[in-house]
Amino acid sequence: MTESSDRAVELVQTWRGEFPESSHRGHAVIVDETGQVVASWGDENAVMLPRSACKMLQALPLVESGAADAAGLGSEQLALACASHQGSAIHTERVEKWTSSLGLREADFRCGAHYPYDTDRATEMRIDGEEPCQFHNNCSGKHSGFLTLNRHLGGGAEYVEADHPVQQSVRAAHDEMTEDTSPGYGIDGCSAPNFATTMKGFATALAKMARPETLGPTRGRAASRLVEAMMAHPELVAGEGRACTQMMRAMPGRAAIKTGAEAVFSAILPEHGFGIAIKIEDGATRASECVIAALLVRLGVAHADDPVIQRYLAAEERNRRGILTGHIRPTEAFYAGGAAL
Amino acid sequence: MTESSDRAVELVQTWRGEFPESSHRGHAVIVDETGQVVASWGDENAVMLPRSACKMLQALPLVESGAADAAGLGSEQLALACASHQGSAIHTERVEKWTSSLGLREADFRCGAHYPYDTDRATEMRIDGEEPCQFHNNCSGKHSGFLTLNRHLGGGAEYVEADHPVQQSVRAAHDEMTEDTSPGYGIDGCSAPNFATTMKGFATALAKMARPETLGPTRGRAASRLVEAMMAHPELVAGEGRACTQMMRAMPGRAAIKTGAEAVFSAILPEHGFGIAIKIEDGATRASECVIAALLVRLGVAHADDPVIQRYLAAEERNRRGILTGHIRPTEAFYAGGAAL
Repeated sequence: MTESSDRAVELVQTWRGEFPESSHRGHAVIVDETGQVVASWGDENAVMLPRSACKMLQALPLVESGAADAAGLGSEQLALACASHQGSAIHTERVEKWTSSLGLREADFRCGAHYPYDTDRATEMRIDGEEPCQFHNNCSGKHSGFLTLNRHLGGGAEYVEADHPVQQSVRAAHDEMTEDTSPGYGIDGCSAPNFATTMKGFATALAKMARPETLGPTRGRAASRLVEAMMAHPELVAGEGRACTQMMRAMPGRAAIKTGAEAVFSAILPEHGFGIAIKIEDGATRASECVIAALLVRLGVAHADDPVIQRYLAAEERNRRGILTGHIRPTEAFYAGGAAL
Repeated sequence: MTESSDRAVELVQTWRGEFPESSHRGHAVIVDETGQVVASWGDENAVMLPRSACKMLQALPLVESGAADAAGLGSEQLALACASHQGSAIHTERVEKWTSSLGLREADFRCGAHYPYDTDRATEMRIDGEEPCQFHNNCSGKHSGFLTLNRHLGGGAEYVEADHPVQQSVRAAHDEMTEDTSPGYGIDGCSAPNFATTMKGFATALAKMARPETLGPTRGRAASRLVEAMMAHPELVAGEGRACTQMMRAMPGRAAIKTGAEAVFSAILPEHGFGIAIKIEDGATRASECVIAALLVRLGVAHADDPVIQRYLAAEERNRRGILTGHIRPTEAFYAGGAAL
């Protein structure tokens, strides 16, 4: 595996007082509906694992197979299928209702259990002595989608294995959308295979999601429904206080955005027909959130003076006594790049 | 402020399956007792904020002023003065006893409050409805030292202000030990000034701590007592499950090591007379812990087959179902560097 990280560009810096303290390099690519790179920073050919930022691609087979309609899924369920939710009641209750209505049980999931990222909910559970179950897993919506698809396909119980019909259909959609053959996969935190691609390949797939009319009727309708669902239910895609939820609310109907582990970020911009892929090479979410906010502002989709956008674009760091100690912001190299924007 | 991060070297990589997923660049410098650079990666002249990794330097005035002896401090208190503890009972009870014996109250602290990093203790407190106080702050031992010094010096209450006699004495010790004039400071998470230096300057100061006999009787005795205290009480310097505590236990009496925020790590090696300074440019602790473990092994101070060292040197990543998904390890560039070792 060739390392391409030496071509990563310094995109974000953190400052403490007058000192630059830490910095984050990475790759960012914007692709348009024709598959052309509109702007890029770093290496558009860098191989990457898109992690949870590609959940809308992983959900395509659920819809285009007819499984979603057969199960009567609405836009809330489709948003959850694309979500990394924080395990609040609005998420777990919907996941439980969805899957139990199909006769599925918690034991059918293969995502594993963890305490909700919703810290209030997690604290409540600890106080009550309640152990987390797989419904609380941030990927339980995606897995509900996998289970729904699996029921439709009639596959075996181990739906996260790479050669299972569910994952084979995910891989086929992934390769078609990225216009490339995935070089392989890593196992994700939720045990599903996560298919590798390039920065450009991922952005290409996202641009197609932004122009579903180019995808033919079945896939196009599936892509459109997923993107619309994400934009219609920002609170289901992540949760209160989360970057995806907050930023999607700040630009209603103008972009579907999704974070992924290890500082991946994706965006689908229907107005522009653009797909955006971001990967910070060190895996720092503070940096991927900063870059997506900066790109959304540069593209005119979000407003720099919106307090929510400011929170990610130029985050202030305050210490235990509330004293301003520093901030995080895009670098000059970020602003110097992407001349076409 | 000149950016020198473009000279940072890729030191650590994370892998997911067969794919390198994220990588961490940084600087590492080893200096010997004569102030010579023994080995370096990246830029030895990079300016950095040493954060909590320099607490043993910040504690020098406490001891060399006579304040520690006047207050009857033992090695436990000196270890706490150098600590970023996790707010377990063994830490907070000692801090409270120490400062109350001097007639000081919690309200005299200026570090701010936060829940303990000890998650069991934090959960207990939340269950009991107990709010954190400044004793729980991971820097409360350092601040106890500042308060003890301040009592000795007769300074005003705002001992964290940069022009306060306490911080002026810290700055003087910092400059003498680093053999440089600090270009300034940032405000730390605990509100104290954190004086900037270079990678080499920081490693030089740490090498001096490793050879206290070169520092003259007063500073030398102070340095020796602080280093001995850290090595004698690894559990007070951090806490159960923490890298500093675990690694110091794995090489008893052979090194005093200390983590700092934003991926700084320091080590004092009395046998070698070496000081080690590490700064990962992106601030990722998983990488600074990996590099310090790798350097301790390369220097023969720790053993690669020690399970504790392995945990940091070649950490396995497992997912929610316990499946091995990847690992983190030093890069080829790390092993190719430092030829003199």
